[in-house]
Amino acid sequence: MGLLDCINPRAIVTSALLLTSLAQDVLARPSPEPKLPWGRHGAGKKKMADHIKRAMAGERRANNESACAYTLTTTITAPKPNIWGPLTDVETASVVEWLFAQDDLNLTTTEDATAWDNTIVLVEALWPNKTDALGFIDGNATAPTKYAHVIINNRATDAPYYTDIQVGPLPLDNTTASWVPLTYPYNKQNEPGKVRNLDADQEAMYSEWLYVHSATVADITLELWNGTAMGLDNDTLDIWGIDPMWQDDGRITRWDAFWNIPTGEFDSETLLPLGLYMLSDITGRDISKWKLEGWLYNNIFYNSTEEFRKAFFGKCFKKLGANVDGDWAGTDRQGPFLPMDAAPPPVQVAPAGSRYAVDKKEKYVVWMDFSFYIGFNRDTGMTLYDVRYKGERILYELGLQEALAHYAGADPMQSGTAYLDTFYGFGPYAFELVKGYDCPAYATYLNTSFYVEETSHTHLNSICLFEYEADFAMQRHTSSKYASVTKNTYFAVRSVSTVGNYDYTFTYSFYLDGSIAVEVRASGYIQSAYFANNKDYGFQIHDFLSGSMHDHVLNFKADFDILGTSNSVELMSVVPAKKTYPWSQGKTRNTMAIERSIVETEDDGRFDWGANGATQVLVVNEDAKNKFGENRGYRILPYTGTAHLTVKDSSNLVNAARFAEYDIQISKHKDTEPRATHPFNSQDTYDPPVDFSKFFDGESIRKEDIVLWLNLGMHHVPHSGDLPNTVMTTAHSGIQFTPSNYFDIDQSRQTVNQVRINYGKGQAAKVDTFGQVTGPTCPISYTPVEPELTGYVGDIVVRKFPFDPNNPYFETDSIV
Amino acid sequence: MGLLDCINPRAIVTSALLLTSLAQDVLARPSPEPKLPWGRHGAGKKKMADHIKRAMAGERRANNESACAYTLTTTITAPKPNIWGPLTDVETASVVEWLFAQDDLNLTTTEDATAWDNTIVLVEALWPNKTDALGFIDGNATAPTKYAHVIINNRATDAPYYTDIQVGPLPLDNTTASWVPLTYPYNKQNEPGKVRNLDADQEAMYSEWLYVHSATVADITLELWNGTAMGLDNDTLDIWGIDPMWQDDGRITRWDAFWNIPTGEFDSETLLPLGLYMLSDITGRDISKWKLEGWLYNNIFYNSTEEFRKAFFGKCFKKLGANVDGDWAGTDRQGPFLPMDAAPPPVQVAPAGSRYAVDKKEKYVVWMDFSFYIGFNRDTGMTLYDVRYKGERILYELGLQEALAHYAGADPMQSGTAYLDTFYGFGPYAFELVKGYDCPAYATYLNTSFYVEETSHTHLNSICLFEYEADFAMQRHTSSKYASVTKNTYFAVRSVSTVGNYDYTFTYSFYLDGSIAVEVRASGYIQSAYFANNKDYGFQIHDFLSGSMHDHVLNFKADFDILGTSNSVELMSVVPAKKTYPWSQGKTRNTMAIERSIVETEDDGRFDWGANGATQVLVVNEDAKNKFGENRGYRILPYTGTAHLTVKDSSNLVNAARFAEYDIQISKHKDTEPRATHPFNSQDTYDPPVDFSKFFDGESIRKEDIVLWLNLGMHHVPHSGDLPNTVMTTAHSGIQFTPSNYFDIDQSRQTVNQVRINYGKGQAAKVDTFGQVTGPTCPISYTPVEPELTGYVGDIVVRKFPFDPNNPYFETDSIV
Repeated sequence: MGLLDCINPRAIVTSALLLTSLAQDVLARPSPEPKLPWGRHGAGKKKMADHIKRAMAGERRANNESACAYTLTTTITAPKPNIWGPLTDVETASVVEWLFAQDDLNLTTTEDATAWDNTIVLVEALWPNKTDALGFIDGNATAPTKYAHVIINNRATDAPYYTDIQVGPLPLDNTTASWVPLTYPYNKQNEPGKVRNLDADQEAMYSEWLYVHSATVADITLELWNGTAMGLDNDTLDIWGIDPMWQDDGRITRWDAFWNIPTGEFDSETLLPLGLYMLSDITGRDISKWKLEGWLYNNIFYNSTEEFRKAFFGKCFKKLGANVDGDWAGTDRQGPFLPMDAAPPPVQVAPAGSRYAVDKKEKYVVWMDFSFYIGFNRDTGMTLYDVRYKGERILYELGLQEALAHYAGADPMQSGTAYLDTFYGFGPYAFELVKGYDCPAYATYLNTSFYVEETSHTHLNSICLFEYEADFAMQRHTSSKYASVTKNTYFAVRSVSTVGNYDYTFTYSFYLDGSIAVEVRASGYIQSAYFANNKDYGFQIHDFLSGSMHDHVLNFKADFDILGTSNSVELMSVVPAKKTYPWSQGKTRNTMAIERSIVETEDDGRFDWGANGATQVLVVNEDAKNKFGENRGYRILPYTGTAHLTVKDSSNLVNAARFAEYDIQISKHKDTEPRATHPFNSQDTYDPPVDFSKFFDGESIRKEDIVLWLNLGMHHVPHSGDLPNTVMTTAHSGIQFTPSNYFDIDQSRQTVNQVRINYGKGQAAKVDTFGQVTGPTCPISYTPVEPELTGYVGDIVVRKFPFDPNNPYFETDSIV
Repeated sequence: MGLLDCINPRAIVTSALLLTSLAQDVLARPSPEPKLPWGRHGAGKKKMADHIKRAMAGERRANNESACAYTLTTTITAPKPNIWGPLTDVETASVVEWLFAQDDLNLTTTEDATAWDNTIVLVEALWPNKTDALGFIDGNATAPTKYAHVIINNRATDAPYYTDIQVGPLPLDNTTASWVPLTYPYNKQNEPGKVRNLDADQEAMYSEWLYVHSATVADITLELWNGTAMGLDNDTLDIWGIDPMWQDDGRITRWDAFWNIPTGEFDSETLLPLGLYMLSDITGRDISKWKLEGWLYNNIFYNSTEEFRKAFFGKCFKKLGANVDGDWAGTDRQGPFLPMDAAPPPVQVAPAGSRYAVDKKEKYVVWMDFSFYIGFNRDTGMTLYDVRYKGERILYELGLQEALAHYAGADPMQSGTAYLDTFYGFGPYAFELVKGYDCPAYATYLNTSFYVEETSHTHLNSICLFEYEADFAMQRHTSSKYASVTKNTYFAVRSVSTVGNYDYTFTYSFYLDGSIAVEVRASGYIQSAYFANNKDYGFQIHDFLSGSMHDHVLNFKADFDILGTSNSVELMSVVPAKKTYPWSQGKTRNTMAIERSIVETEDDGRFDWGANGATQVLVVNEDAKNKFGENRGYRILPYTGTAHLTVKDSSNLVNAARFAEYDIQISKHKDTEPRATHPFNSQDTYDPPVDFSKFFDGESIRKEDIVLWLNLGMHHVPHSGDLPNTVMTTAHSGIQFTPSNYFDIDQSRQTVNQVRINYGKGQAAKVDTFGQVTGPTCPISYTPVEPELTGYVGDIVVRKFPFDPNNPYFETDSIV
């Protein structure tokens, strides 16, 4: 926490070394919390015993001056080690060293590698299979054997490919250590565990292809935009293209577009398209066989550079304007000042400090009756594991699987783009959070690390944990005699990943009634389109700019375990009904009723939210009825809007993102289907490492261990208010999980943070505050603008090969 | 504000008199706020001139000790009087006095009235027609002439009825004052302006009917539940029934049910149904002709009391259990204490006080670039008028129209219930808010008043206004070089109405990007059903209790004026598409595109949200294009879930709630269609005062003054977690209005409450805080539990006839 808040650069080495010893100071066990029996309250119910009050509130110091000081026990030791935790620095280094010693892998360090050398892309912990994990977290079994998950970029071949391999067991021992292809989590048809690499010649793509062809039209780009893109320092133009590349008919083709390079300080390039596109067939590694297939400008396709040049310098060529950087593309404050805006706005403060406990080493968190572990990996960033409420597991796993941003347009750049962001990774882009802005200043901040090019990078303060009071109550009721209101204080875990232009704020929230919310909010720069001919694909939002329409679909895995792993999904719909009753005197009444069904097999396991919100989706344990015979369960509830992909059978994606096709998808849990996709699905869209639709093969999902794959998302047609950045007031999507007959009564009744006021006839009210600490008035120290922001320093990097833990350095360059 | 916070009962008279003079101290005009030209920022952009800083932040005192004290100008004078304001006490008293002087009305004071006397039900301001109002609020026209809206309960007749009348002009002058039937706002087919009163014999209904028939089965109720309902002080049972009454075939019939009366302090009766129902035909006022038509118990219908008695005392009668009050039905804290819960939780504080200005007398509010007036009436509570952003009106009117709660069940009580809550009124039930629980302790609180039985009641502190910082940012973007984040500070206006069992929290929120949110959250006690045979209508949630399924549909009027009154609704859908392009080399691509259309007439004006959120609903001004040729407008966006009524052509409602049939309904604005319904629609369901469906008669709604009637709501199938009260984490519905190409750029760029951090290479970051006040660290005085709650005193009542302003008294009995 706040490790480098006050550091100067000279102190880096010392500080970075602290990283590995962070856990040392948080091992104190909390004193056990007193438990009172649930149930009937007698005469003494509103009188909290003093010793309990003290225990609950922490030890408030005795003397008057310090009556406002709390010493809550906010460190805790996780009941078990976090088996979804990262490799240690030493483990990572040992794996890397071992890998380089394996002749059969024929590896070269990234620094020394050419496009024809094999390199290590990834070294991280291989998360255990659930079947192996349950015995450990629920019983007395030993922890699952630890393995490293490694991805090798095999480029020393005409047909470059990535391989997922498993290395271990850890700690490595030269007699037992081995690597084996990692294939079981993937369902690729051909050569499982391998996927081709379409980017092997990424450098040559620029130096020997894009810049070369750009140079052949430099006179045109100069005339159109007074700029060139030739790989020179004074380039004012950039070239980049579609993702994934097109893979039809056994050919690899790509469209690239020209963009203005921002002239200011902002990351605004995606707002500066210029409307010229080039088509290349780049099949194979022999660049001499690559083929420039044409140019497109203003919706006219030219079969060759010659044809394009001829047209351009002919009489009828229509030159359109350029999108040029400017204040409109910068996020800094602008426009008239707002009345009273410079006075400090309201802010949430935590008078008693943290009311939750964290084991920072194991990333284990306890708030009120919730507990969970946090896992973190390169592909998807933060994942929650073993989410429990009142000691019972609700979810084994809850985390992002993939974020798709599928564009469309009249031009091939937008039409051809369908980003699968785990290719870039959410871990590497989970930048440091801005205290007091991304999360409250009083939040607890955790670090995260990821592997890149024989180093591990640590994003400081990249996960935040905080409690917050909603601006509305949890419960209330007023009669003419009393008012009863309960505060809605919730707990949130957040990380923000900025994958290129877009910033995704991921938040998991926990509520006093046992509810959990999953939310994503989007900000950052849109990827825009050149305006020409794009009327049917977006609004015109600036001089020559179209707000390129796109669908965001973010898939989350929610592996529910409701009172065990034997779960079912019950659908409960409210439907119009015409009914006669024994008492309706023969008349048919227009009314409504409930229809229930259980989703029996995976064949029926993919569907959308019902029209008019009429259908409840309930994850229940049919063998765990409550005392009134109802299935105990959790309801899955759309919260702030969701979306699945508009495009049917996308030409860009083919089989690479079948997860995006429905709102809700339920499959039987299998160790062989741990994730809905793979970061390299974009490399072989016809036969991707994971084709999600193959999960659905008719198996029973009734009274089985089931997984819900839930899509959040939004259809985004950017308008002028998306400039310079999309705002998070409206760019949001969320789902809630809420107890459904899981308990006999609302669980928020347990909190003391409620009040009952008995009033009437103008007399002073009788106020029951249920044992809340009612005074004295305490001063809170508050500084309007969080002063520690100068401590925002970027990533800490530790070299893993050769292992050099004593020379960490700062570098913020997250590209894998 | 907080008028009576510190008062003792002896000081009541003085305090209440203050009510009418509240406005006196808030007339100071604010000093004009400096305006800087919008647009390009130069070298000086980040340096805010000192004098501006002082003006924006208020006058911060010069000496160091007080550097944390702000004196913001938070009072303001409304630019025009609030023409949607209430009648003054004097006006109300004069109208009442005048009415009693009109022989043709033949009025009796409520106190002295029998069931056969005419009484005054309502005296309040008649809100002006929009066509009359616009000239005043937008131009130099004089204010619309003020009239009183009066409802008379005409019971001195065999066929009792209510009449809406208009009395005025105000101030009353004996030569010009008159009353005329108020008919133009209603579209009743027969006798517009009048609606029958089915409750005229409400007292006799109990004393001469229900208790009499209950007494005939007292031996049965004693045996079943050890209780009786006979109108005696020691009754332990209550009887009440369906709403609306059934009105088929010219008969008026009602079902009544038996309920246990709560034995504790809580308002839990709606959780205590007993499963016995009686059917009465109560057509006409001659009670001797009323007919007991039967009894129902455990789904067996008995044609007469004799038949029921015979069965009950026969051998085969199956007696079922009773729902009995207990801790399960009380909202007080119960169960084990939560860890650390007694320590004060996080809380929002306002270090600089209010950053908005309020004219309390005119209920006029200015926050940042938003301004609006608040109206308040008996039927619907709070309504916002003339909502402007940056000086331009966005909405002429925004407010609740009606809240329907439509139940269904196997028993006639639930099947027959479809509450139209404005019959009870949202104004009378807008109870005092609980500071620090319903709204932040630092909020501004306003009073509201309503008329009842020759008195006016004032709910103290029943509207709150506050600013709040969301737990997530408005905007953010991080690159490897900088992070830019903007706080999401918003402004909210809230009132809570508890209509019987349910508490509706209504919130209108305003955001820095120009967005507005409309939200309702529900808490309080559910109306539950007796469990027998109700499996198809709800969950069993307690011993003999079913969580009776019901639909909440809350209709809001949103009278948009986007840059004038000539508005259109544009639909913009994202749709799957198969397309070929000049560049697609003959291939058809599976992609998507936008389809747009304008809703031309009211015939097409009623529809639902599109599947998969694919259709944007935009209110635009087609003649006000932005500079890129796009229609300027606002988007209407589902936020936290909405619902329309499941039941088709409800047997209970017939024509009384046609507003509930679709999600979105657009009609041409007419002065004759000011409201979607009428509080007495329940009294004549076949021919109600307002049949909403008649608004839709094919008129053009393109480039017209249009009104959107939007339904919020939820399908509520209560589960055990709704006991004792429904919680607001999940019982929510909301809609947002957000600028769509309305501006050229996101308006939140204006706020100083943002930061840009330039960082890298581990060096201390450069932090730009854009003129925010950056220190010093200020102590905030905070008391954990809001200490003023003992000032929660109930309503202040002032008698209007005879007018007795100097003897106000306290009484909290909101029944109209």
